[in-house]
Amino acid sequence: MNTIKGPAIFLAQFMGEEAPFNSLETICQWVADLGYKGIQIPTWESRLINLDLAAESQTYCDELKGKINSCGLEITELSTHLQGQLVAVHPAYDLMFDNFAPQALRNNPRARTEWAVKQVKNAASASKRLGLKAHATFSGALAWHTMYPWPQRPAGLIDMAFTELATRWIPILNHFEECGVDVCYEIHPGEDLHDGLSYELFLEKIKNHPRACLLYDPSHFVLQQLDYLEYIDIYHERIRAFHVKDAEFNPTGKCGVYGGFADWKTRAGRFRSLGDGQVDFKSIFSKLSQYGFDGWAVMEWECCIKSPEQGAREGAPYIQNHIIEVTKKSF
Amino acid sequence: MNTIKGPAIFLAQFMGEEAPFNSLETICQWVADLGYKGIQIPTWESRLINLDLAAESQTYCDELKGKINSCGLEITELSTHLQGQLVAVHPAYDLMFDNFAPQALRNNPRARTEWAVKQVKNAASASKRLGLKAHATFSGALAWHTMYPWPQRPAGLIDMAFTELATRWIPILNHFEECGVDVCYEIHPGEDLHDGLSYELFLEKIKNHPRACLLYDPSHFVLQQLDYLEYIDIYHERIRAFHVKDAEFNPTGKCGVYGGFADWKTRAGRFRSLGDGQVDFKSIFSKLSQYGFDGWAVMEWECCIKSPEQGAREGAPYIQNHIIEVTKKSF
Amino acid sequence: MNTIKGPAIFLAQFMGEEAPFNSLETICQWVADLGYKGIQIPTWESRLINLDLAAESQTYCDELKGKINSCGLEITELSTHLQGQLVAVHPAYDLMFDNFAPQALRNNPRARTEWAVKQVKNAASASKRLGLKAHATFSGALAWHTMYPWPQRPAGLIDMAFTELATRWIPILNHFEECGVDVCYEIHPGEDLHDGLSYELFLEKIKNHPRACLLYDPSHFVLQQLDYLEYIDIYHERIRAFHVKDAEFNPTGKCGVYGGFADWKTRAGRFRSLGDGQVDFKSIFSKLSQYGFDGWAVMEWECCIKSPEQGAREGAPYIQNHIIEVTKKSF
Amino acid sequence: MNTIKGPAIFLAQFMGEEAPFNSLETICQWVADLGYKGIQIPTWESRLINLDLAAESQTYCDELKGKINSCGLEITELSTHLQGQLVAVHPAYDLMFDNFAPQALRNNPRARTEWAVKQVKNAASASKRLGLKAHATFSGALAWHTMYPWPQRPAGLIDMAFTELATRWIPILNHFEECGVDVCYEIHPGEDLHDGLSYELFLEKIKNHPRACLLYDPSHFVLQQLDYLEYIDIYHERIRAFHVKDAEFNPTGKCGVYGGFADWKTRAGRFRSLGDGQVDFKSIFSKLSQYGFDGWAVMEWECCIKSPEQGAREGAPYIQNHIIEVTKKSF
Amino acid sequence: MNTIKGPAIFLAQFMGEEAPFNSLETICQWVADLGYKGIQIPTWESRLINLDLAAESQTYCDELKGKINSCGLEITELSTHLQGQLVAVHPAYDLMFDNFAPQALRNNPRARTEWAVKQVKNAASASKRLGLKAHATFSGALAWHTMYPWPQRPAGLIDMAFTELATRWIPILNHFEECGVDVCYEIHPGEDLHDGLSYELFLEKIKNHPRACLLYDPSHFVLQQLDYLEYIDIYHERIRAFHVKDAEFNPTGKCGVYGGFADWKTRAGRFRSLGDGQVDFKSIFSKLSQYGFDGWAVMEWECCIKSPEQGAREGAPYIQNHIIEVTKKSF
Amino acid sequence: MNTIKGPAIFLAQFMGEEAPFNSLETICQWVADLGYKGIQIPTWESRLINLDLAAESQTYCDELKGKINSCGLEITELSTHLQGQLVAVHPAYDLMFDNFAPQALRNNPRARTEWAVKQVKNAASASKRLGLKAHATFSGALAWHTMYPWPQRPAGLIDMAFTELATRWIPILNHFEECGVDVCYEIHPGEDLHDGLSYELFLEKIKNHPRACLLYDPSHFVLQQLDYLEYIDIYHERIRAFHVKDAEFNPTGKCGVYGGFADWKTRAGRFRSLGDGQVDFKSIFSKLSQYGFDGWAVMEWECCIKSPEQGAREGAPYIQNHIIEVTKKSF
Repeated sequence: MNTIKGPAIFLAQFMGEEAPFNSLETICQWVADLGYKGIQIPTWESRLINLDLAAESQTYCDELKGKINSCGLEITELSTHLQGQLVAVHPAYDLMFDNFAPQALRNNPRARTEWAVKQVKNAASASKRLGLKAHATFSGALAWHTMYPWPQRPAGLIDMAFTELATRWIPILNHFEECGVDVCYEIHPGEDLHDGLSYELFLEKIKNHPRACLLYDPSHFVLQQLDYLEYIDIYHERIRAFHVKDAEFNPTGKCGVYGGFADWKTRAGRFRSLGDGQVDFKSIFSKLSQYGFDGWAVMEWECCIKSPEQGAREGAPYIQNHIIEVTKKSF
Repeated sequence: MNTIKGPAIFLAQFMGEEAPFNSLETICQWVADLGYKGIQIPTWESRLINLDLAAESQTYCDELKGKINSCGLEITELSTHLQGQLVAVHPAYDLMFDNFAPQALRNNPRARTEWAVKQVKNAASASKRLGLKAHATFSGALAWHTMYPWPQRPAGLIDMAFTELATRWIPILNHFEECGVDVCYEIHPGEDLHDGLSYELFLEKIKNHPRACLLYDPSHFVLQQLDYLEYIDIYHERIRAFHVKDAEFNPTGKCGVYGGFADWKTRAGRFRSLGDGQVDFKSIFSKLSQYGFDGWAVMEWECCIKSPEQGAREGAPYIQNHIIEVTKKSF
Repeated sequence: MNTIKGPAIFLAQFMGEEAPFNSLETICQWVADLGYKGIQIPTWESRLINLDLAAESQTYCDELKGKINSCGLEITELSTHLQGQLVAVHPAYDLMFDNFAPQALRNNPRARTEWAVKQVKNAASASKRLGLKAHATFSGALAWHTMYPWPQRPAGLIDMAFTELATRWIPILNHFEECGVDVCYEIHPGEDLHDGLSYELFLEKIKNHPRACLLYDPSHFVLQQLDYLEYIDIYHERIRAFHVKDAEFNPTGKCGVYGGFADWKTRAGRFRSLGDGQVDFKSIFSKLSQYGFDGWAVMEWECCIKSPEQGAREGAPYIQNHIIEVTKKSF
Repeated sequence: MNTIKGPAIFLAQFMGEEAPFNSLETICQWVADLGYKGIQIPTWESRLINLDLAAESQTYCDELKGKINSCGLEITELSTHLQGQLVAVHPAYDLMFDNFAPQALRNNPRARTEWAVKQVKNAASASKRLGLKAHATFSGALAWHTMYPWPQRPAGLIDMAFTELATRWIPILNHFEECGVDVCYEIHPGEDLHDGLSYELFLEKIKNHPRACLLYDPSHFVLQQLDYLEYIDIYHERIRAFHVKDAEFNPTGKCGVYGGFADWKTRAGRFRSLGDGQVDFKSIFSKLSQYGFDGWAVMEWECCIKSPEQGAREGAPYIQNHIIEVTKKSF
Repeated sequence: MNTIKGPAIFLAQFMGEEAPFNSLETICQWVADLGYKGIQIPTWESRLINLDLAAESQTYCDELKGKINSCGLEITELSTHLQGQLVAVHPAYDLMFDNFAPQALRNNPRARTEWAVKQVKNAASASKRLGLKAHATFSGALAWHTMYPWPQRPAGLIDMAFTELATRWIPILNHFEECGVDVCYEIHPGEDLHDGLSYELFLEKIKNHPRACLLYDPSHFVLQQLDYLEYIDIYHERIRAFHVKDAEFNPTGKCGVYGGFADWKTRAGRFRSLGDGQVDFKSIFSKLSQYGFDGWAVMEWECCIKSPEQGAREGAPYIQNHIIEVTKKSF
Repeated sequence: MNTIKGPAIFLAQFMGEEAPFNSLETICQWVADLGYKGIQIPTWESRLINLDLAAESQTYCDELKGKINSCGLEITELSTHLQGQLVAVHPAYDLMFDNFAPQALRNNPRARTEWAVKQVKNAASASKRLGLKAHATFSGALAWHTMYPWPQRPAGLIDMAFTELATRWIPILNHFEECGVDVCYEIHPGEDLHDGLSYELFLEKIKNHPRACLLYDPSHFVLQQLDYLEYIDIYHERIRAFHVKDAEFNPTGKCGVYGGFADWKTRAGRFRSLGDGQVDFKSIFSKLSQYGFDGWAVMEWECCIKSPEQGAREGAPYIQNHIIEVTKKSF
């Protein structure tokens, strides 16, 4: 058993145009004042990090780390959610995803993919230089649009899609192996890796690559009604990162999981500020502690009702109260 | 209140290469022997009906009806599920849906759409000639691939998609109005009309066209965890057709609603033979009777475990036992 | 342990203007053909019994019994629900209850009460002559309108009401004692005896009179959300009669137990035909058998949706299938 | 969306004979010290307000308001629960309700009604002078004693009762319209408006008068097992006031909703101090915020176990912790 | 997938002193008339089989089988529950178990064990001669009395007990391997193998011996509140025999799983006749069919309320209705 | 009603080799600093108390009490769990329990029993000298190994065991009567008194001795799935002590109540730090307050995950927040 580290906060949803949300120094001060001890850094956010430089320069990394540490904070992980997503995009979503890529690469899926692969690899190098052990990202998706089996999927379609997905990721995973860093896929709707079964499909294709690990975020399981506690029992050995994000699912006679194209406030499944949703974090922290997870508890925050300021303020003590200092005694 | 008619059976899943499953006469005899009183006819199945001819010829329709009646059966509704689907197809699914269209129209989405519209209109004409009041179909889909809001849907995308969907369906609905027949959309994943919210979006676009009605099939609601009983409370005035189809949803630590690209047997949500699933048909028949539904209870059957022969054999008494002869007394 | 007798049927809700529902002979034949073995007779129904005569004449009783037995039926119990109700009526309900009394006694509560007491006593005498051991009735009510404690009940009000109720019933109970027959109060909303607590209040006032027993009807407990299984564990020694009546409770955002003055079809709680409601009869028959109940399982029937003919037809096999032939073996 | 105001407290149950509970100044100080920011004033409590004077004198109102504001408090609403109750009383409850009226009017229902109507109208005038937008009251009841349909209600009885109820309230509602104040009926057992269905009956009779709004108090819905969350989905546009009151319902084998005339401690349904009951306030605050409710969260307090001092002390932070500062961002 | 065979019946609880329960011929006729197609034979019942002879003589086995087949029945499995139990007995239970052994061996645990081992081995030989593939038995127990960890178990105690248990069973399992028959341990309280964890402990000690399989009986899991459906997901590859036995668990404020030394009727957990308990056989038959179980569905029957005659009569159609003829189609 | 006293803490699980856990003075200071107001003293712990001396010497007791009071603490009860256990031990557990007894008495069950009886009696005397009203202990067990009725218990076995148990305890109970102290048996698996039924068996044998009372600890009921709230309704008059101990029960497909000989972390039922388990303490404190329990709320602590330091730190405010200051008002 291990004591989970925290509280930490994923900065992506908090960046903004105005202070203190518009620079690394000011936002670090803000989160440190709220009681956080770690930050997860979205690497596409140039006000927080220069990823290309970080991949190359130890000096830059040391300075970056120093700046953050001086606020009483640690970096928990880097994140390449957006770039990881772009490693694999089905054409049906090309336009919608193009705005994650540099302007120059839009309308050029091949170049966009190459850029994305390079970005994720850079994150490995940067993580190593920063002394990090885990990295957060998305798998991307080639087959998500066929998630529901209507129309019937042609024989071999899924196999082909996962073979291609593996082909793209294996070199990346190998680079992470060299850097001694785990890739932690956030299992998420919209990605080919959206539940345990699809993760296992992928594992099979990549021959159980030891770096193909998991970021555990229960909110996405609430929204698809997957048993997020049993999930820990099954996959705990691969869980290396943890998003503390809350959600609720309240189906009605008008709306179930699929959501009728409605906005977040109107959907049956929606994300909520910590403590306002239905996630049983008490059991999650128990299970992760019991199985020896020694990473960070990083709040990811989205709420369609509560303000982010209140959410951030409440999140630090919420996580703090859930952390279990593990026992050394046995009865 | 009204007494629901039945039991009836949707023939689509029972057609096959061998007798009695390969001709109208033999399959009618088979289902009549099992105790069914009505059949729903898939109009793409040429062994059962010549839809183009039926749209034109009263003689053909009279003979067809006579042949069926002579087995002790009635036609409950015609179905154009496959053709209705082709009224609107997003390019991402073009290849997969092409095999629902005549060979000549493949790889020609525009012609395919025109053909589909004509087919559905023909079904209206044929229904009128056959004395039918309701018709079963799918809406097709232009936006289904964006069902989950990741990537974020560009502003206006859904509005545009539903405007186009309405544009395609309004002439069809008008033709149904002329024929005095209700279009009953089967609310179904994969279609733009997949729950109450999306149906309401559509209604708004078609200005509440009186013929845009519903085929109620609870199995698709179990699989998306929509409250299928409250749905009747909300939409009962528009429900004009009814599929008696069973389903179950058993999420685990590996699999939720989305299903991980698995086959039916392995998915958390799966269709089952009548009585083998979780649908509370006792309450459904109570509600439909209470609200005055006077159509047919038509078994639709798919089961990934039980044989269709056993399913068909058990289905007739199952439905019979659920039909409520409504009271004329009040206490 | 004992094997419960049945199936039987309470005739009150089935009497009507047309054959076979309008005479003892024809209705007996009808229920016997449906598979029933016993009938519970509403004594206010002059086409079935002349209660005053039955109280006095052994010859009449022997003939009545013979007529019924000749159809293969037994009398299970006599019922004086309506007359028992009139033993105690609060003035707020005088007008509404007057139509249960003979025309001459309307607008004369005192005379009406006297008549009611005499009627219930006659039922004791008649039951004795017919060889019956149990009798079904209502307690009447003096305080029901104060069921909800708003406005606050003046101190002593309930005590006074129950003292008066006891005063009226003790002479009746004593007459039942002389006749060797149990009074079985149907615990029912609208009566002062409407749950376990109110029954215990009454027992206290009548010093635990041994003839103040219970008719168990779970439908009234479903509608008030009382635990009808635990009720058997608590009161089984006093349960001497049993109504097999089904019910359901489906609260919504518009309606709870109180029902908003709506009609039966619209209420959250409503009676249903056997098997169409929520009552767990499997557990009820197990508990009653386990505790040695040796009376009759008598269907009482009301349904706001299903026809009484279908209800009666389905009721006999439903009860038959629930009867447990008790074992003599132990493991 | 709006941020709910609070915490506030309804003073009715806290007034007493001893300081600080016996004067406006002292009780205001007490609640302000506990952290409350608003008070709801029971207008029958002459130590808090002189309603007749307040209806007439702007000076009095300005002074009253000033006195309260000087403690750091605002008036949330005036309440005429007792007087509103007396607008309509069925004779069966005349005696019990008489002690809500001035001594001189007892035993004189007609005069009592007139007085009550005048009182409620005065509350409108006073509310206007105090700058209030909403007013809390009861509807009174003419038909509550027939809540359970035994004996069967004569045809037309409910229609007649609600017609009369509307006749009495329409002039009052019109006066509120003139004053620009909403009447917020607390939906409550014992009142004719005791659930959604009865409220809709009333709305129909008063032609949807725009001032006939709702005070939302979930405790009364727990006690009748009405779905208090779905209720918000249905009626949110009419909810203009909010009582934060907790309750629990624990039915047993002895007791269900009706309660067997028992005292509060023994009933299955009972009120509890905030946080000690079963009400899901997390979801309530989410829904009210989501639907834009911008009124006050006013604690109403009754508990049959906990002391009012502890209850008041815990109530302010309890409400504070539930208030959602609504977001301006959307994802 | 495979279609489960059945219905069959375990004869142990039905043998008695009077016809038809006192000889093989008469009881076979009785169960065949009830609709059973197979019997499971308790080998300690000399009126049904001479186990020692059966182990040696092919002629005897052929005759026995012929006699049974001539009634339209098949042997499903032999059972050595009592002898298997005696393979391992903790001294605390010596006296209680002695009556399962021949008179001569009582008070002689060592000889009793040897006899038991020999018996179980004989059952392997006999099974082979009878053409059977599976055998039903108990593991016996050396550590059951320490099931609850109070007093704390000395370090190594369980390891030692399971090592000894394995030592006794390995030669038996090897003999079964030679005979080509699976040992199916009925997982059962009182045995060292009483749940999945303890079975896994044993498997480890016997190095996953391929013949150490399982008899699946959900009733014993209901009584210890183990998830009997997930159990099939985990262990289906080892399930080779199946007892269709029903049970219920109704804990109260007086009694939980341990049962307070009460008799069966009074315990919270108790066995019930098929359909009278809580076991979800619909899901069990689905899962076993889905996973390809091709053995027999054998009713084991114990009920503390219902008579065995009624139980046996109802059991055959109950099982018949649950058997799924598996499909060859896929959708 | 009464206000429960607390928070208090049972010291047994906190004693250790290092300061502050190794002496009365230091541990008292530690728990007082954490906010506790009372301690329950394990009398086998010689660093805390000299039980033999305390039984004899008022001076010693006064000094002991003074020392504890001077830390701001009170003694809640003495405990003789280990000695009470030794009052009755079945030979199967002799070895395992021997280490609770003085070295000299090991392997000498008779002497061990005598010593144990004397110890428990001494605790009565000491409690009297310390001004205590209640005492915590175990009953011991003679029949626990036969808890599951397999093998069938010989007729009379349980009766004999409980007769013997009563014989041993009656003199002890009488001595407690003389001292004016209640024996509070902790109802616990492994003890003959492990649920309500077994307690009632014992009460019958000791003729309802008024001193044979109960220590209420819900954690042991969670682990056997007994209804711990209804238990209070039934036995509240005998509950005189209260352990606030949390637990959870999470059965899986591998493990139910019996636990498969696994360690605590792996069992379905396990003890947890306060607030980390499933016990509904809100309802427990309500019920105990409602029924007038006026003893101490004493945390007993065991958790297989959380450290005892964190557990102790969180326990005091946890209990404090649950204590209800009872009302003197009624509505």
